[in-house]
Amino acid sequence: MNVFVIGIGLIGGSMAKDIKQLDSNVRIYGIDANEAHLDEALALGLIDQKSTYEELSTADMVIVSIPVDVLVKELPKILDRVHDDALVLDAGSTKSLICKVVANHGKRRNFLACHPIAGTEFSGPSAAIPGLFDGKTNIICEIEKTAFKLQEKALELFRQLGMRISYMNPEAHDKHIAYVSHLSHISSFMLGKTVIEKEKNERDIFDMAGSGFESTVRLAKSSPAMWTPIFEQNKQNVVETLEEYIRNLEVFKQMLLEDNFEGVYKEMSNTNKIKEILKGIPLNKH
Amino acid sequence: MNVFVIGIGLIGGSMAKDIKQLDSNVRIYGIDANEAHLDEALALGLIDQKSTYEELSTADMVIVSIPVDVLVKELPKILDRVHDDALVLDAGSTKSLICKVVANHGKRRNFLACHPIAGTEFSGPSAAIPGLFDGKTNIICEIEKTAFKLQEKALELFRQLGMRISYMNPEAHDKHIAYVSHLSHISSFMLGKTVIEKEKNERDIFDMAGSGFESTVRLAKSSPAMWTPIFEQNKQNVVETLEEYIRNLEVFKQMLLEDNFEGVYKEMSNTNKIKEILKGIPLNKH
Repeated sequence: MNVFVIGIGLIGGSMAKDIKQLDSNVRIYGIDANEAHLDEALALGLIDQKSTYEELSTADMVIVSIPVDVLVKELPKILDRVHDDALVLDAGSTKSLICKVVANHGKRRNFLACHPIAGTEFSGPSAAIPGLFDGKTNIICEIEKTAFKLQEKALELFRQLGMRISYMNPEAHDKHIAYVSHLSHISSFMLGKTVIEKEKNERDIFDMAGSGFESTVRLAKSSPAMWTPIFEQNKQNVVETLEEYIRNLEVFKQMLLEDNFEGVYKEMSNTNKIKEILKGIPLNKH
Repeated sequence: MNVFVIGIGLIGGSMAKDIKQLDSNVRIYGIDANEAHLDEALALGLIDQKSTYEELSTADMVIVSIPVDVLVKELPKILDRVHDDALVLDAGSTKSLICKVVANHGKRRNFLACHPIAGTEFSGPSAAIPGLFDGKTNIICEIEKTAFKLQEKALELFRQLGMRISYMNPEAHDKHIAYVSHLSHISSFMLGKTVIEKEKNERDIFDMAGSGFESTVRLAKSSPAMWTPIFEQNKQNVVETLEEYIRNLEVFKQMLLEDNFEGVYKEMSNTNKIKEILKGIPLNKH
């Protein structure tokens, strides 16, 4: 089986690693706009050979894991080139626009819209890790628009990777994911910014910051090239979550200013139930 | 040596565990307002016996690890009772008020104001873990006000626990810690609140949330009883950091609304340097 990975970074690279592990007969072809990443992927053994769009007609499966702004431009071209039995998957963090862009494509049946809820704050081929998808959720949108045989092929792969499947329409996906993922990234980036601005002398931060701070700003290490187009495509939902978040912060601040510490206590106590929610989240095992 | 731990939870319990490990001749006495916690600490072997303020006169060292509102009330009473060569340490997350409260106490020389930057989001005796302080920073305030021999005794203990020492005045401590710790807790609590409010159906959160979300809201599991008085005592600094944080979030939102994605990219890219800062933070090793 010929598997093409377009965008050989954290997600594409980790998937390539697991697929190769599952079946040594698979041949992995890498395509990437960044030649250095391709070389690195080859050196790391993530791919068996470098490739180009010209060879896409030989693909049995294509995994497209590139920033969502490039994805909406490239996916139609990729579909143009694959043969009728090829499965094309994406891994984008937004789903509405990409589903819209290929809605009327002649090869829409070859495409399965996916969002594996897996990753780390790192990026590039060196960030690829085995078992990244084990126990994680894969959100699949508009499954009914994918050819039945290709649905089966994809679901079998996800089963082998250890993934749980959640079906959702693209609009619901984008709305919910704004809360549990996109907002977290903004809160983390802005927290990092606030502290960096204030603490010009970084030594002081080193000395005083503990694991709690590390945890809340970890996502501020994320790639701006990946996240800017996500915020752009999901702008409306993201702005809405951001407004609610700011409103909640304002309420908390007001309570502090009014010495309403009973209210402050209650706010935190009510939110403590997040414990139960967090228990359900599968974490990376390494 | 008789070591009294007043407040036998995550911090006091972890310190008791390490002290016992360092010197089996030490006898650990536990005092706690919560009788169930005392029983638990005894069962877990964190303390050798339960005790009361009446026995404090036999203490060589007293570790006071209780919420900061109780701390400011109890510390003077504790100092009243200890003998002249006893060392009394605290572990409060605020330092100005506590230093002010004992400034003119007859036994001020017996007290060392400390803030070990160590912990987890859990609390109570069962949260105590060995080696918690290894590699972590201990912020010490007004060391010059502590008797020289007791300074030496404390520093020797911290050295054995593997801690780095940072000296700071109480006002500087409270100002900086608001940025790198107190603000993180509020951002996390309010992020948790925003998502819980929106996602009434918790199943959806389970399915869609990944490790990034978990990381940013982890601190929202923290104890409101511990954190409310911290915010109260450090209200002015906390409100200031909160205002700057909200301002940064508003700027980010405005950029999104104005389709200024170049600006959005730059904001994130500038904050990426947090990577270098985070490298310097010692994390829990277990």
